[in-house]
Amino acid sequence: MRGVILQAPGDVRVEERDMPAIVKPTDAIIRVSATCICGSDLWPYRGLEPAEHQPMGHEYVGAVTEIGAQVKNIKVGDFVVGSFFASDNTCEICQAGYQSRCVHAELIGALGTQAEYARIPLADGTLVATAGQPDPDLIPSLLAASDVLGTGWFAAVAAEAGPGQTVAVVGDGAVGLLAILAARELGAERIIAMSRHADRQALAREFGATDIVKERGHDGVARIKELTGGLGAHSVIEAVGTQESMMQAILATRPGGHVGYVGVAHDVSLEGQELFFSAVHLHGGPAPVRRFLPDLIELIWNRKINPGLVFDLTLPLDQAAEGYKAMDERRATKVLLTV
Amino acid sequence: MRGVILQAPGDVRVEERDMPAIVKPTDAIIRVSATCICGSDLWPYRGLEPAEHQPMGHEYVGAVTEIGAQVKNIKVGDFVVGSFFASDNTCEICQAGYQSRCVHAELIGALGTQAEYARIPLADGTLVATAGQPDPDLIPSLLAASDVLGTGWFAAVAAEAGPGQTVAVVGDGAVGLLAILAARELGAERIIAMSRHADRQALAREFGATDIVKERGHDGVARIKELTGGLGAHSVIEAVGTQESMMQAILATRPGGHVGYVGVAHDVSLEGQELFFSAVHLHGGPAPVRRFLPDLIELIWNRKINPGLVFDLTLPLDQAAEGYKAMDERRATKVLLTV
Repeated sequence: MRGVILQAPGDVRVEERDMPAIVKPTDAIIRVSATCICGSDLWPYRGLEPAEHQPMGHEYVGAVTEIGAQVKNIKVGDFVVGSFFASDNTCEICQAGYQSRCVHAELIGALGTQAEYARIPLADGTLVATAGQPDPDLIPSLLAASDVLGTGWFAAVAAEAGPGQTVAVVGDGAVGLLAILAARELGAERIIAMSRHADRQALAREFGATDIVKERGHDGVARIKELTGGLGAHSVIEAVGTQESMMQAILATRPGGHVGYVGVAHDVSLEGQELFFSAVHLHGGPAPVRRFLPDLIELIWNRKINPGLVFDLTLPLDQAAEGYKAMDERRATKVLLTV
Repeated sequence: MRGVILQAPGDVRVEERDMPAIVKPTDAIIRVSATCICGSDLWPYRGLEPAEHQPMGHEYVGAVTEIGAQVKNIKVGDFVVGSFFASDNTCEICQAGYQSRCVHAELIGALGTQAEYARIPLADGTLVATAGQPDPDLIPSLLAASDVLGTGWFAAVAAEAGPGQTVAVVGDGAVGLLAILAARELGAERIIAMSRHADRQALAREFGATDIVKERGHDGVARIKELTGGLGAHSVIEAVGTQESMMQAILATRPGGHVGYVGVAHDVSLEGQELFFSAVHLHGGPAPVRRFLPDLIELIWNRKINPGLVFDLTLPLDQAAEGYKAMDERRATKVLLTV
């Protein structure tokens, strides 16, 4: 089968890979229908994380072709959505809603879902089947649920976005944009998108942003304060993962407010006194997407939300290299690969 | 009047100071009945924070002797308890329960309550009157409510200590010990005190600790994991404020669990990836003691709790220097000064 390999930073290839096979009786094999390129894939692509002949991809939707002997909830032929962490969904941590930190968690990224087929561990806990075979136009949205929507949703929940709240969103990538959608669905009164790109501002408005702030860093914080009677937002979502974005999020939040952060932290260090006197709630980490998948799939299935709009470039798997390039050069927000 | 002055690090004096007077119409003057020495007073005492001829003290109970023209809720003769931040208790931040970050907040510490009299700004918002003149044996507990109990209580609330929860407490100073009492009152099932001092372990047990862990740092984290089925505590209270104690708290918390931190951060820096993958909730800062004061005073008044037990040395104000020395040398956990 064909699959994406990051040969070295900047060098994306689609090569023949071995067909995945059932390794454990809790595994399933899926025929991938669609996959995509994640902002986090750009870290090794840009050489900021090590990469050497590495299978890529951790987002996926598709049909089950084979199941292990112990798989009970999922059957061959089911159309399924899963997240980037395999989880048993039964341990105490999963039951508390933190499936990304399941005591048996496995990273799907190591398996590489930018490919024709993929092995999914802990299939019963990891995969959620749709009510039937989806209409083709639903596939981008279901794929978005697999990571960027689920992550944005977790960020909005972690930031306690809700009725009567003013929510600010730091980061206008796919996750930030879908956090806006999540905040709207959760009932936020006012949603401030921090973005300086016209196309992303437009999508932010479509997803529910009521205000746009172009400034960043200290100026961005000052603008949020100005828009919130000097107090700061009730909820701030951080979807970048840099020192500047984290501090922007913390300082734009009012005392007692909530920061939900999902940008994977790179070279971030939070100074104790600054955090202490901010008096904010801070919660985030690798999003437990599985917690939200059933509800998100239902919202998509019933066409209540259209997170698939976040894909602004669709390419066949064979052109993955062009997809990485477009995202790296910020010509595309999020690239869908058809398989 | 007499009052404590930190002349220079290590040099505590009781000197004549000017009688405080009403400065703003929202002020009150109180005759201090009892005050105490705070762990945070040791930072300048030890030369770790600047100190030069500085009035000391921010904990106080006493009787009102004079009120400004706009004070309505408090009258001359009332016995009152207040916290270390003056707050209007009416602004949006106060109403959300974060009086320590009131938009008009003033630090009481700058005024120095280790003295015969003190000026309390924003008296209507800051002070809570007791139901009458307290029995003398209640005074230590009411004084504890002014800071250490209120701070420990906030830490337990921030850590979401409650029924069915396992709570670990990092720090066996007065705040940590009273956080144990708070966790018990909030219904926690199991309370693990981290302490290596026999006298503090005994008080921890009296306040409700069910387990004692003597190990610190990585060993302490390993021990908490061992006691919690490998998962970590649901709630961890941090009441020290060092790098080691913060990391001990974060790493001893299970994914999705809550860290409540109230140790004033000194040279603390949280590494982004470690925090990210811990997936904990982090909340803390300067405790909004005022939020809890009415309830705490009622619990004390009705003799449901006895936080005054935390004072293990009582001295007259004139012997303040000996009190500082005893706390610095860890001969005393918490020193009460009678005035």
